[in-house]
Amino acid sequence: MSTIRHALSVKRADDFAQWYQEVISAADLAEESGVRGCMVIKPWGYGIWERIQRLMDDRIKAAGVSNCYFPIFIPLANFEREASHVEGFAKEMAVVTHHRLIGDGKGGLIPDPEAKLEEPLVVRPTSETIIGDAMARWIQSWRDLPLLTNQWANVVRWEMRTRMFLRTSEFLWQEGHTAHENRESAKVETMRALEMYRACAQEDLALPVIVGEKPENERFPGAVETWSIEAMMQDGKALQAGTSHYLGTNFAEAAGIRYQDREGGQQFCHTTSWGVSTRLIGGIIMTHGDDDGLRVPPRIAPHQVVILPMLRENEGDAALLTYCEELRSGLAQQSALGEPVRVLLDSKPGKVAAKRWDWVRKGAPVIIEVGGRDMESGVVSLLRRDRLWNASAKPDFAAPSREECIAGIGAMLGEIQQNLFDEALARREANITRGLTRIDELESFYAEDQRYPGWVEVQWSKPTGAALDKVVEQLKAMKLTIRNVPMDAAPADGTCIFTGEPAVERIYVARAY
Amino acid sequence: MSTIRHALSVKRADDFAQWYQEVISAADLAEESGVRGCMVIKPWGYGIWERIQRLMDDRIKAAGVSNCYFPIFIPLANFEREASHVEGFAKEMAVVTHHRLIGDGKGGLIPDPEAKLEEPLVVRPTSETIIGDAMARWIQSWRDLPLLTNQWANVVRWEMRTRMFLRTSEFLWQEGHTAHENRESAKVETMRALEMYRACAQEDLALPVIVGEKPENERFPGAVETWSIEAMMQDGKALQAGTSHYLGTNFAEAAGIRYQDREGGQQFCHTTSWGVSTRLIGGIIMTHGDDDGLRVPPRIAPHQVVILPMLRENEGDAALLTYCEELRSGLAQQSALGEPVRVLLDSKPGKVAAKRWDWVRKGAPVIIEVGGRDMESGVVSLLRRDRLWNASAKPDFAAPSREECIAGIGAMLGEIQQNLFDEALARREANITRGLTRIDELESFYAEDQRYPGWVEVQWSKPTGAALDKVVEQLKAMKLTIRNVPMDAAPADGTCIFTGEPAVERIYVARAY
Repeated sequence: MSTIRHALSVKRADDFAQWYQEVISAADLAEESGVRGCMVIKPWGYGIWERIQRLMDDRIKAAGVSNCYFPIFIPLANFEREASHVEGFAKEMAVVTHHRLIGDGKGGLIPDPEAKLEEPLVVRPTSETIIGDAMARWIQSWRDLPLLTNQWANVVRWEMRTRMFLRTSEFLWQEGHTAHENRESAKVETMRALEMYRACAQEDLALPVIVGEKPENERFPGAVETWSIEAMMQDGKALQAGTSHYLGTNFAEAAGIRYQDREGGQQFCHTTSWGVSTRLIGGIIMTHGDDDGLRVPPRIAPHQVVILPMLRENEGDAALLTYCEELRSGLAQQSALGEPVRVLLDSKPGKVAAKRWDWVRKGAPVIIEVGGRDMESGVVSLLRRDRLWNASAKPDFAAPSREECIAGIGAMLGEIQQNLFDEALARREANITRGLTRIDELESFYAEDQRYPGWVEVQWSKPTGAALDKVVEQLKAMKLTIRNVPMDAAPADGTCIFTGEPAVERIYVARAY
Repeated sequence: MSTIRHALSVKRADDFAQWYQEVISAADLAEESGVRGCMVIKPWGYGIWERIQRLMDDRIKAAGVSNCYFPIFIPLANFEREASHVEGFAKEMAVVTHHRLIGDGKGGLIPDPEAKLEEPLVVRPTSETIIGDAMARWIQSWRDLPLLTNQWANVVRWEMRTRMFLRTSEFLWQEGHTAHENRESAKVETMRALEMYRACAQEDLALPVIVGEKPENERFPGAVETWSIEAMMQDGKALQAGTSHYLGTNFAEAAGIRYQDREGGQQFCHTTSWGVSTRLIGGIIMTHGDDDGLRVPPRIAPHQVVILPMLRENEGDAALLTYCEELRSGLAQQSALGEPVRVLLDSKPGKVAAKRWDWVRKGAPVIIEVGGRDMESGVVSLLRRDRLWNASAKPDFAAPSREECIAGIGAMLGEIQQNLFDEALARREANITRGLTRIDELESFYAEDQRYPGWVEVQWSKPTGAALDKVVEQLKAMKLTIRNVPMDAAPADGTCIFTGEPAVERIYVARAY
């Protein structure tokens, strides 16, 4: 039996972290910038982000939410206000203290001591407080509610240990911020955003996710409820892929977001916030990547089909290019997953085999090679990225006629999208362990020399305060965290694995990014 | 004769600056944020920016340029490098010096002295140097060229006097950065970007612009050539609406952007950069606004048609809403200016007259009101924003049948787009003075008590160095600047208005934003 010669030098099974870095580099997604904790997102990576943005933005607009833009700088006073009412206030932020550079007399530049800001400004780590100020100006009466805003922006959180896409000092995201008359309306919006994230993750990114509420200790500081979508990576770890917060009146009280109600009284608004970020790209890599590189789900692939003509730098090239251009145009007129097919005819110089492997590593869903003999026979050589190898450990090329290829592309891309989802879902289900009822069972489960042990579903009594802290400590000793309380879980029917009291719900525990 | 009662309290003719502020506020485009020099861009203003982005981005992608994302923070060393090779280095920038806040013991927060950065970071004012670093990593040989990148981003330039959209400390823009084998290739790209800006300004924004090269003293620091599009505002001042720079090898030498040429030698790349910003929205306001508020060109209007049902909060409302929804759906199925018509059915509570004037101030191109009697007669009441008033100083409503309205909307929106452009072009041409040949003529022209004197075309000998400085000083005394050397001007045929030497070209001088 032949052995597959994979396109990457590191296999997932051997060193997942190293593999992750190699995919990012081999698929040309991003790179370190030389600026601490900040990455450069390269065209293929940014193209994936643009697709996610476009699809998410359509969903955001369809929900009646308006995009706005708020300042990148937030006055210190806003954080002082927040720090005074919110426990767990995060203080690692980029602080602007000067507004001018001057020469230091030695050929260098220094912040001009004469240009020190009276009040330092913070580069936004999130915008609740600055948007809260705007809401306080914009909202007078119940007629102004709900107020539904969103922004696409960069944010900065000073991170000590960074990892591309997963944890960087600067990242890109959208942050929705809404204000409502009452708890009911705010909860509806919280859950709408959560459902939007579920749909986007599953339908667009082909990421199966568990939708549920985070436990008290994992709430966003100041939130009354934090909900999340959680995805399982191929190393069995969990990735929080999006959050939606019901903030009660906490931020409204701090920012003075009041409205006159229908009876003429003054009330604080109930607010929500919700966000997803470029972290999703990390989730896509660790869910769909394989030992040959990335596999991009067709719905978010910048190019869904890449055509590689086998040019020979002779007089035959013109006819071949015409044949390929007709193919490109025929494919581009087809529709897949509800949109026109996105096709690239890549006629840049270079050997076709080298270019093929570049596109394999980047994860283009379909790669089509066309040589002179293909053209003569009226066929193309087609490679599906989700079924790369045949039984003989060779690239599994099919040879449809050009017309069959064009006619079938819509269905094929839909099938690839579904396959990636199904594969990820099956893997996740195979890696969730259920039925552990004692803490020592949990301990020995994670103590075993399993490389990628996955998640465990347990039942608990939902302790709060000090009792919860104790549970969190117990889990921390096993390097575990509570991911969320899944919305669609079966009712509890046992005892709490931590306290021995009657259980009230099921939770997932896992190692996490 | 009746007098029109305009929707704004300030007229352009009375106080243009005040009128500008009132349009921004009355059209709900943006507002001061409370953070020095930073604005909040509100939904209608941001919606216009999203339209500009979408149309420009399509043009950028069609030219083969790839979007990327580069860090917001730039190390001081990059600017030191730049300062050493570029005169006129701008030093007003936001400088990050700390990465943590701590309590000051009095309930406040201060930058943590323990968390001072070893090297301060600058919030990008533009990204030539950081993108130059990436290009130096990415480019090895001529095969990697041209390298065509762009990013949509926020940038910060500390401004002492700010004005919404025109000059704010933070603004949004796109910045294209490209690297090439030689001058010819870089020049082609410089001019391609310039032509893209011309087309976008004229076709999308309905802004007639003068395309030309900036004089030496107005070049971007480090550029070999700076080209611009210049638009005339209704107060006769010029607005630089976009620039495209040919940078020679200056930035390549500073950042070490080298490539191996076809003969195996090492060469520096020739680079370009080009950008437009949210400043364009200021240009739209000052070109298309009138005494009733903004008029948004249909191609960039977030909603091109707004339908206002005259709801009476009784049982008749359901039928009226159905009638309006059919209208909305019928309009949305039409195409205008090559895209589906964007229609809003605005059934929010409120009196229709008040809502009408809100949409007039915002500048929706077409406003349609529908009452019970309209419905009974199968008609609608239609108001074109570009022809708001009739001879009796009343809103000039037309009453087409619903079917006529639907069938005609595409042509009507196209006509409005063209009208706005034609009007602005005629105004500009009427406000360009030609034929002044002596400096005292220029002086007395601008010394006259003309509120909005417009631009003057003069001929000059293109002095450089100290001779140019003298010209710039002379103009500065008249509060004038050289805008650009128009590409399509007639050849020079006279003497230089400044030096008396034979003229070599024509230039525009004007007051400017």
